[in-house]
Amino acid sequence: MRIDIITVLPELLKSPFEASILKRAIEKGLVEVHFHNLRDYTTNKYKQVDDYQFGGGAGMVMMIEPIDKCISQLKSERDYDDVIYMTPDGNTLNQSIANGLSLKENLIILCGHYKGVDQRVRDMHVTKEISIGDYVLSGGELAAAVVCDAVIRLIPGVLNDETSALTDTFQDNLLAPPVYTRPAEYKGMEVPEILLSGNFPKIEKWREEQALERTKARRPDLLE
Amino acid sequence: MRIDIITVLPELLKSPFEASILKRAIEKGLVEVHFHNLRDYTTNKYKQVDDYQFGGGAGMVMMIEPIDKCISQLKSERDYDDVIYMTPDGNTLNQSIANGLSLKENLIILCGHYKGVDQRVRDMHVTKEISIGDYVLSGGELAAAVVCDAVIRLIPGVLNDETSALTDTFQDNLLAPPVYTRPAEYKGMEVPEILLSGNFPKIEKWREEQALERTKARRPDLLE
Repeated sequence: MRIDIITVLPELLKSPFEASILKRAIEKGLVEVHFHNLRDYTTNKYKQVDDYQFGGGAGMVMMIEPIDKCISQLKSERDYDDVIYMTPDGNTLNQSIANGLSLKENLIILCGHYKGVDQRVRDMHVTKEISIGDYVLSGGELAAAVVCDAVIRLIPGVLNDETSALTDTFQDNLLAPPVYTRPAEYKGMEVPEILLSGNFPKIEKWREEQALERTKARRPDLLE
Repeated sequence: MRIDIITVLPELLKSPFEASILKRAIEKGLVEVHFHNLRDYTTNKYKQVDDYQFGGGAGMVMMIEPIDKCISQLKSERDYDDVIYMTPDGNTLNQSIANGLSLKENLIILCGHYKGVDQRVRDMHVTKEISIGDYVLSGGELAAAVVCDAVIRLIPGVLNDETSALTDTFQDNLLAPPVYTRPAEYKGMEVPEILLSGNFPKIEKWREEQALERTKARRPDLLE
C-alpha cells in the first residue's frame, strides 16, 4: 500500500510515523507513506496556501490551485483508489471503513486546515470525505495519522500476532471484556478467580458474558 | 491548564506538540504538557510494562504496578480534575466533552496499548474513559494527541480569532456550509454568485440554508 498525505504541516506528522507499529510497517516494506508539503505547489513568492473566504467571515480557506497541482501531479504518476479529504463533516470513521481502506493500493489523504478547503477541491478531486469523530481539531493532520494507524495495522503482516487484531473491540460489535495480568493480587485487589482456574471453556464463556454486559452498559447502540 | 500524559511511547507524541496550535499554546504558557515514560516507573531490570493476560489469549496487558506508581506520584504533587484513560470502549469524544475538559485545570491522560490496561487500574484510578471513535488504533497515543488538540484549541487565547472556534462545525449541531476563496473562477468552476454579491444578510441566509441542507444530507442524526 502507498499513502500520499498532502499537508501544510508535514513536520507535525513526523513522529507518529517514526514509532511503533507504523514505523515497523514502513520498515517491513508493507506500506509507503509520503508527505507532500502544500507550500511546494504554490506559485506566488509568499508560498500562500490560504486566503479569506468569499462572502466574509472569520477563518481562512485553503486555496484550490496548490491542492489541484499536487493531486494532479500524483495522479499523473499512478492510479489512486481514493482521494480522501479529512473533514469534520465527512463520513465518521469506523472499523468497517478502516477494514475497507486496508484493502486499497494507493491512497491520497488531504489534510484540511483553518475553515477547510475551497469547495471546488471537493467537487473536482475528492472521492471520500472522512471525519474521525464529532469534534473539531486544529487541522486534518492528526486525523490523517489516526486513519493511517487504524488502516495500516490491519494489513496482513503488520501486527505480530494476527489473531490479536481479529479479537479487537469493534470487529465483532462487542466491546472487549476486562483483562488482567500479574500480579494476581495488588494492594488487596484480586484478579477474578475464574481467570486463574485453567478452565478455558468456562473462561471463554465468562469473557463473552463480560463483553456483552459491558457493551449493554456502555454502548447499547452497537447491539442494535 | 496542565496535562500529564502517561505512555510507553513518548517519542510517538513528540511532533504533534511541536507544531502549529499546540506549540503556540505551550509557548504562550496557556498549557503545560508533560510526557511520562511508563518504563521509568518499572522495578524490574527489563523495564517490563506488560505481561500475558490471565486466562490466556492473544495480546499483552499493561501491568498495574508501573501505572499506579506513576499516577500516585503525580497525585502526590498536585490535585487532578480527572484521570482519563484512552480506550476504544470509553465514552465517545464529542465537542461537548471537549468543551467540558477545556475548563479543567489538571488532567492525567493514560494511553492504553496492546490489549489495554489491567482492569484494576481502571477501578483504582481512572475517572473518565474516552474513545475518539469506533475504530481500533495501535495505541492510545494518537488518541491522546487528538483529545489534547480538541481541548487545547478551545482555551481562550489559543486561537488567534476566537470567533473562529465558535463557528466551527458541531458547536451548533450543524455542519459548516461550503467555503470558497480566490480565484473566483478556476478551470471553469465558479464561486456561487451570492458570495460575491456583498449582500451580507443574504449571504448569511444562504450559509444557514447550506449548513442545514448539508447536515440533513450527511448527518441527520445531529438534528434529532
